[in-house]
Amino acid sequence: MAKRGSHGLETFPNPNPQRDYVIRHVAPEFTSRCPMTGQPDFGSVMIEYVPDRLCVELKSLKLYLQAFRDEGIFYEAVTNRILDELVAVLRPRWMKVETRWNPRGGMHSVVTAEHRQAARGRTRQVSVERENRLRAGGPSR
Amino acid sequence: MAKRGSHGLETFPNPNPQRDYVIRHVAPEFTSRCPMTGQPDFGSVMIEYVPDRLCVELKSLKLYLQAFRDEGIFYEAVTNRILDELVAVLRPRWMKVETRWNPRGGMHSVVTAEHRQAARGRTRQVSVERENRLRAGGPSR
Amino acid sequence: MAKRGSHGLETFPNPNPQRDYVIRHVAPEFTSRCPMTGQPDFGSVMIEYVPDRLCVELKSLKLYLQAFRDEGIFYEAVTNRILDELVAVLRPRWMKVETRWNPRGGMHSVVTAEHRQAARGRTRQVSVERENRLRAGGPSR
Amino acid sequence: MAKRGSHGLETFPNPNPQRDYVIRHVAPEFTSRCPMTGQPDFGSVMIEYVPDRLCVELKSLKLYLQAFRDEGIFYEAVTNRILDELVAVLRPRWMKVETRWNPRGGMHSVVTAEHRQAARGRTRQVSVERENRLRAGGPSR
Amino acid sequence: MAKRGSHGLETFPNPNPQRDYVIRHVAPEFTSRCPMTGQPDFGSVMIEYVPDRLCVELKSLKLYLQAFRDEGIFYEAVTNRILDELVAVLRPRWMKVETRWNPRGGMHSVVTAEHRQAARGRTRQVSVERENRLRAGGPSR
Amino acid sequence: MAKRGSHGLETFPNPNPQRDYVIRHVAPEFTSRCPMTGQPDFGSVMIEYVPDRLCVELKSLKLYLQAFRDEGIFYEAVTNRILDELVAVLRPRWMKVETRWNPRGGMHSVVTAEHRQAARGRTRQVSVERENRLRAGGPSR
Amino acid sequence: MAKRGSHGLETFPNPNPQRDYVIRHVAPEFTSRCPMTGQPDFGSVMIEYVPDRLCVELKSLKLYLQAFRDEGIFYEAVTNRILDELVAVLRPRWMKVETRWNPRGGMHSVVTAEHRQAARGRTRQVSVERENRLRAGGPSR
Amino acid sequence: MAKRGSHGLETFPNPNPQRDYVIRHVAPEFTSRCPMTGQPDFGSVMIEYVPDRLCVELKSLKLYLQAFRDEGIFYEAVTNRILDELVAVLRPRWMKVETRWNPRGGMHSVVTAEHRQAARGRTRQVSVERENRLRAGGPSR
Amino acid sequence: MAKRGSHGLETFPNPNPQRDYVIRHVAPEFTSRCPMTGQPDFGSVMIEYVPDRLCVELKSLKLYLQAFRDEGIFYEAVTNRILDELVAVLRPRWMKVETRWNPRGGMHSVVTAEHRQAARGRTRQVSVERENRLRAGGPSR
Amino acid sequence: MAKRGSHGLETFPNPNPQRDYVIRHVAPEFTSRCPMTGQPDFGSVMIEYVPDRLCVELKSLKLYLQAFRDEGIFYEAVTNRILDELVAVLRPRWMKVETRWNPRGGMHSVVTAEHRQAARGRTRQVSVERENRLRAGGPSR
Repeated sequence: MAKRGSHGLETFPNPNPQRDYVIRHVAPEFTSRCPMTGQPDFGSVMIEYVPDRLCVELKSLKLYLQAFRDEGIFYEAVTNRILDELVAVLRPRWMKVETRWNPRGGMHSVVTAEHRQAARGRTRQVSVERENRLRAGGPSR
Repeated sequence: MAKRGSHGLETFPNPNPQRDYVIRHVAPEFTSRCPMTGQPDFGSVMIEYVPDRLCVELKSLKLYLQAFRDEGIFYEAVTNRILDELVAVLRPRWMKVETRWNPRGGMHSVVTAEHRQAARGRTRQVSVERENRLRAGGPSR
Repeated sequence: MAKRGSHGLETFPNPNPQRDYVIRHVAPEFTSRCPMTGQPDFGSVMIEYVPDRLCVELKSLKLYLQAFRDEGIFYEAVTNRILDELVAVLRPRWMKVETRWNPRGGMHSVVTAEHRQAARGRTRQVSVERENRLRAGGPSR
Repeated sequence: MAKRGSHGLETFPNPNPQRDYVIRHVAPEFTSRCPMTGQPDFGSVMIEYVPDRLCVELKSLKLYLQAFRDEGIFYEAVTNRILDELVAVLRPRWMKVETRWNPRGGMHSVVTAEHRQAARGRTRQVSVERENRLRAGGPSR
Repeated sequence: MAKRGSHGLETFPNPNPQRDYVIRHVAPEFTSRCPMTGQPDFGSVMIEYVPDRLCVELKSLKLYLQAFRDEGIFYEAVTNRILDELVAVLRPRWMKVETRWNPRGGMHSVVTAEHRQAARGRTRQVSVERENRLRAGGPSR
Repeated sequence: MAKRGSHGLETFPNPNPQRDYVIRHVAPEFTSRCPMTGQPDFGSVMIEYVPDRLCVELKSLKLYLQAFRDEGIFYEAVTNRILDELVAVLRPRWMKVETRWNPRGGMHSVVTAEHRQAARGRTRQVSVERENRLRAGGPSR
Repeated sequence: MAKRGSHGLETFPNPNPQRDYVIRHVAPEFTSRCPMTGQPDFGSVMIEYVPDRLCVELKSLKLYLQAFRDEGIFYEAVTNRILDELVAVLRPRWMKVETRWNPRGGMHSVVTAEHRQAARGRTRQVSVERENRLRAGGPSR
Repeated sequence: MAKRGSHGLETFPNPNPQRDYVIRHVAPEFTSRCPMTGQPDFGSVMIEYVPDRLCVELKSLKLYLQAFRDEGIFYEAVTNRILDELVAVLRPRWMKVETRWNPRGGMHSVVTAEHRQAARGRTRQVSVERENRLRAGGPSR
Repeated sequence: MAKRGSHGLETFPNPNPQRDYVIRHVAPEFTSRCPMTGQPDFGSVMIEYVPDRLCVELKSLKLYLQAFRDEGIFYEAVTNRILDELVAVLRPRWMKVETRWNPRGGMHSVVTAEHRQAARGRTRQVSVERENRLRAGGPSR
Repeated sequence: MAKRGSHGLETFPNPNPQRDYVIRHVAPEFTSRCPMTGQPDFGSVMIEYVPDRLCVELKSLKLYLQAFRDEGIFYEAVTNRILDELVAVLRPRWMKVETRWNPRGGMHSVVTAEHRQAARGRTRQVSVERENRLRAGGPSR
């Protein structure tokens, strides 16, 4: 049933496209490399989305995230790239990606980005909500 | 007092239909099977609703959820199906179902779906709130 | 200073009626009986309110809640009844009652009901907020 | 630099009056006496405010709160009185006082009051927010 | 790639300026000195922002925060100064700085300040949100 | 299979009497009454034992503990009485009963008693261990 | 490399038999059925051992534990049976099995059993330690 | 039944003197004053003992501890004095007093002292155990 | 000062060899690969030792552990190998290595091994303690 | 009353020298510098001792620990040095110092050292206990 998209990501048809509902996958074992020092970075990746016609298949998502293991990439860039690549394959109604990183130099970091489908007459709410979103994403240490 | 609906779900009359109030049942012992591998999946099911004329009887709800024990079904599908079947029996003013799944392949997942009664002149708020809902349902890891 | 109302609930005058402020009492030792089986149920009761002219006296509230010890009553009914009886005595500007119940049959439950004073020109906000309230009361397991 | 106000509370000029920002002080060692029984009560006091021209000096705040050690006063009254006295000295743009009390008779209590500066053309938002505030201040047990 | 700004803070170009997203860095090892007594203060600093054209480089941020180690400065002042200096270098679309301080004299404190880019036609939302912000920044003890 | 002993406690044959192993049952919903004031007390009861020829049946144990609901009895007495009555029925190789009580008057209490089978040539170890036991049972608040 | 033993349990040679070391596997997703009511029980199984010549292969252990899914068996019996069957296959120097069960009727239970290799001149310590073990296995609620 | 001893401490006869068992009372609301500065200190007091012929009555213990409210006394001295005075009244087989103090100057402290009945031929174990005790009382931060 | 040993591990002279003291390093970011499937495994490594003449330098230890990133190795083998290689370089008086692994197939695992210096007349205690060790290493889930 | 010893540490006479009891001070705000890089290190220092004739005065202990703020020193060395210097001043019957360090390079560390008074005929127990100590000081992550 699953179909292969780019980056090896496989999809299957959303079983309930008539309803907006939220799927969240959390991968607490993400690792990539610092592009400056080559040292490994460790963190977790949270992917949350409202599917449109497609859902992502879990095993292919795991393999997709594992492929960053030897890649040198900044926190900000990897977060936006995962969002862009998943959006390109799934075309979700809404998607958020949040990466949380283990301490380096005594500091720990979180990067959060989200995407919203332009169509479906929701443009007005989108801008309001994006603002709310940015605010509401505050720290819950 | 209880009446039997479909899927063995029994109901009793809402003792306070004049007031909107919220009932939440959490079943942390849910288990079904992966439709791909046949392996057991484990998770918890949260059902939250504003009753209209009927409330669900707890023991019949427990048995209803136990009936998934040997069923092969995806996370996304089981969440929407529980919502659909409970809505069909209870006709609640509002209902949300959230399933939280133990890690598989290093990733854990959450699926959240909700239903709102169409009538009662609340259509405008509904769309606004559904949007808010989807956003506010963010991860509280 | 305290005056006796119905159900043995005593009250004292709100020392700061000119200001809307919130009082919350949590009784984690509530017990009643299941009306079906006669078995004891255990839970906690949270009462939160904005007083108008009267506040509830704590010791009488404790005794009032203890009086459910031998009563057979459903979760939904006891929650609404505590709300109704306290509202009748205190006439608060706003009140919420939330009961949280220990697991039975592997499931634990929460029931939440609230009341709002009709007067004081707040009718419009009330309906909006009640909606928000119902939504925002989601699970924080 | 500090100036003495009433109740021994000292103040210093807000170093950044051009910006609305929030200061929170939490005193988890508050003790007073029950006015009925004379028994000591224990709790914590949280004071949160947006300063206007003055900030409260911490040591004088500590001494101010210690002065309740031998005073017999109800939960509701002490919360409102701390708010009133601090508002009289600091004239803040906004202030909230929340007291949380150790269990007595098996129940624990929280009282929350807030004040908002009338001026500065914020009257409309104030009423909306006060409503939101009262609602959003729900229990996070 | 990084460029040096004032206070030794280095920056690099935002890799995704077309999208509003949030970066948060938390430094739990902050220490400065009390300007009254010279005694060391200990706390954590949280910096959260929506980048415009520039992101802050992490190592230079660490060194910038370490430079307060021997400085005598009040909680309120250090919070606003970190915000001002980072805003001057990064010109972010939005930024919040929150400092949380270890107990002194039995009290612990939190100071929260934020900045918002004036331009980009967002002025109306800004004022509403700033209000929401101040309210929503309540204690989560 | 189960046989009824005194106090309604039912037993079943230990399926593995050839091996010393430990069974622990924790009942967090225990309630009795203070013999001085008649006020309800709430706590939890932990029963841990090494069975000899008999194990206690869970449902009868639940009913046995529920029978204290209307009894006026001190913490120290109820702990020793539960131990004595279970020992009389089960004749275990070793048994410990620990009761933990909710705060009254700002203090919470724990009472721990244990029994050891006299026979089986273990007398020497017993005295040494009882000493160790008393020591090792220290608070793990 | 792995060899199949009874009950489908596969083993591989202990890579470091010259050293006593401890392996612990925790399976928090165990489910069986109550032999009285047929209702599902849920719990976790902890297996800890000092290998002699063989280690258990993880996937076969998972499948072995899944096989209890439809079996009706008491807490005490299932704990001892898992211990007996693993000992028969692995012949470990020491092994402990502990099962922890979700609440039923308001009570939760733990059963702990262990086995020790008779040979290797350790008989004296064994009896002392078994005693210590029984004692030290106290509740850490 | 209770008899008044010195310092207002009342006692009642140990209902089970034939058995060594442990009673623990924890008072988390202790306050005294620093003998140097007169500032209030806050902490908790844990009293644990094996009764001989007498048990301490809870309400009189609460009042005894409250009497330190206005006393200036060091951590080390108050801990030993509570132990001495309770031993003088109760003559327990064994007793331990542990005080835990809120941070002052960034440091928090714990003081632990214990007493053992000289008689009853337990002198040898006592010295060994006291040693073990001192060691085992390590920090569990 | 540091000298390079095998596997790139560097050492420096123990500054206090006259005293037995304990050093513990915990690396929560360990990753290797499953030798069966090639899939990445994630866990933490705890190294605890009493140094004799040498201590391990932290940065070289970090690099040593990172070198397992692309190695296919079983839990049991990697634990013993880290112990063996560190013992060969440091010749400690005592060392323990414990690896804790993220769940795979619903199970999580812990492997613990330790080494003790043969010389210094401690042979008798060693055997007793090794036994204690194995027992005391029980689960603290 | 206090007398000044070396390193500015002040002492006062042990009020209860006839009894072995334990005093613990925890300073969670310790900071020094890495002797290799000059970067600040952050950690906590725990000091636990059985006083003989002298106790350490808390304020002088705070100042003593603050004096490491600008010192470059290894984890192992600072732990042993604090122990040596406190022993030289206090001559305690027993003392333990434990330092816990924030993560550096993804690893966090703990160093534990203890001292025991040679005299008082306790030499035999000492060696046994030191062994036990080293073992029992295992990780409680």
